[in-house]
Amino acid sequence: MLKRLNHVALAVPDIAAAAATYRDTLGARVSEPQALPEHGVTVVFVELDNTKIELLEPLGEQSPIAAFLAKNPKGGMHHLCYDVDDILAARDHLVAAGARVLGDGAPRRGAHGKPVLFLHPGDVHGTLTELEEV
Amino acid sequence: MLKRLNHVALAVPDIAAAAATYRDTLGARVSEPQALPEHGVTVVFVELDNTKIELLEPLGEQSPIAAFLAKNPKGGMHHLCYDVDDILAARDHLVAAGARVLGDGAPRRGAHGKPVLFLHPGDVHGTLTELEEV
Repeated sequence: MLKRLNHVALAVPDIAAAAATYRDTLGARVSEPQALPEHGVTVVFVELDNTKIELLEPLGEQSPIAAFLAKNPKGGMHHLCYDVDDILAARDHLVAAGARVLGDGAPRRGAHGKPVLFLHPGDVHGTLTELEEV
Repeated sequence: MLKRLNHVALAVPDIAAAAATYRDTLGARVSEPQALPEHGVTVVFVELDNTKIELLEPLGEQSPIAAFLAKNPKGGMHHLCYDVDDILAARDHLVAAGARVLGDGAPRRGAHGKPVLFLHPGDVHGTLTELEEV
């Protein structure tokens, strides 16, 4: 079911500072910041040769990463996202195996405009796990 | 400087249970467990199409992931590892930029037998970051 690692998401308190670290200190290609108000984050992509890192900064009052940053004020590793071919088939298989899909269980439109779902980290050994249909 | 994402390391309290989740629930290819006593971990590789996930379980009394699991008893995302071409050049560039290399600052032999170093997470916005010369 899991195909590629789509991205690793890192929550950061200051995305401009984090983007500068990845560009200048670590010598990676980084995108311009994109505000995604409907997802409650501003995102910068760090483009690697085989996948990407997504730097996420909270945007607005209801940001889904605000609680994480309150617990981890310096930032940290937030979630992993994997590509799947068929998100409804994946969802049905996961639910049958006892995994909990966050929200109402229906895939929603993710930050890349594709259907995504999140699995409860308690069902994936502590790692918040996103699946994206590609 | 950063090339490929070499791996994402996830610390888990029970590597057999975690390997079963990735194999059976998430439908990924997983390796047999390998004990690496000199690194204080047992490792299982989850092979994705573009990179790999390393599941790490503590091994022995001095495991470098024991403190992390004491704080995160269900497991969680432990570190990211990136490929670099020249680890000494990378180290010199990073130290000049003010980043702290863990240990004595010299690259050491990593779990794959190649030279690695770890950067202090406080210098990488909260993410423990490994570089590996490939």
